[in-house]
Amino acid sequence: MTTPLEIVLSYHRAWTSQDFDLAMTYLADDMVCHAPAGRLVGAEAFRGFMEPFSQILVSSELVGSFGDETTAMLMYDTSTRPVADAPGAELHTVRDGKIVELRIIFDRLPFEQARTVAATRSAPPEGAQTE
Amino acid sequence: MTTPLEIVLSYHRAWTSQDFDLAMTYLADDMVCHAPAGRLVGAEAFRGFMEPFSQILVSSELVGSFGDETTAMLMYDTSTRPVADAPGAELHTVRDGKIVELRIIFDRLPFEQARTVAATRSAPPEGAQTE
Repeated sequence: MTTPLEIVLSYHRAWTSQDFDLAMTYLADDMVCHAPAGRLVGAEAFRGFMEPFSQILVSSELVGSFGDETTAMLMYDTSTRPVADAPGAELHTVRDGKIVELRIIFDRLPFEQARTVAATRSAPPEGAQTE
Repeated sequence: MTTPLEIVLSYHRAWTSQDFDLAMTYLADDMVCHAPAGRLVGAEAFRGFMEPFSQILVSSELVGSFGDETTAMLMYDTSTRPVADAPGAELHTVRDGKIVELRIIFDRLPFEQARTVAATRSAPPEGAQTE
């Protein structure tokens, strides 16, 4: 039988390879994700949060992975286009071979700072005509 | 023999009980911590980062804990005075009964936002005399 950790590692390999269609096959339709910004209900809502992150991924490396009969826990480093050093940790609950609950922790601050810098750069210079 | 997970859980109970002197007994003097803001070298430098966090703690709850022969991984929820919902994840490397390396992940954004709000509140109102 496939263990929760094997399922979670397959999910992890899929999204870090930017194959989110494959990643979705490991998620229960009614899964719940607890993310830094709040609670996401359903695999489609989760996809709306996680797929854009997978698309800015430059590289990733798993640094820890553990599991038991019902749960699995990962820690990984990622490098992304806006933020070079963006580690994450996830705790998954697996039922009937699908991920039903996922807690994800990462630091939003450098992403917020990168967004602010990007917004400043794309704003018209002071005094520029905007019409 | 005490396992890495037992040592890490003892460390966790100590700091979440705000007994940082006890927490320090589980850390190697030359331990290294990888925190969101960067690398901290030595148990004293780590204490300067972690003890202030333990002092703003209101409550905490362990949500996941795993370990093997050399490492242990925790995920926990905390409630703190400035931020009500502040989960964290840690991956520890243990050698000769002491924590020698610690990766810690949490979201700095709500703490930064709370600091900004506090700074705004403590600033004198506009037009106020400051002398």
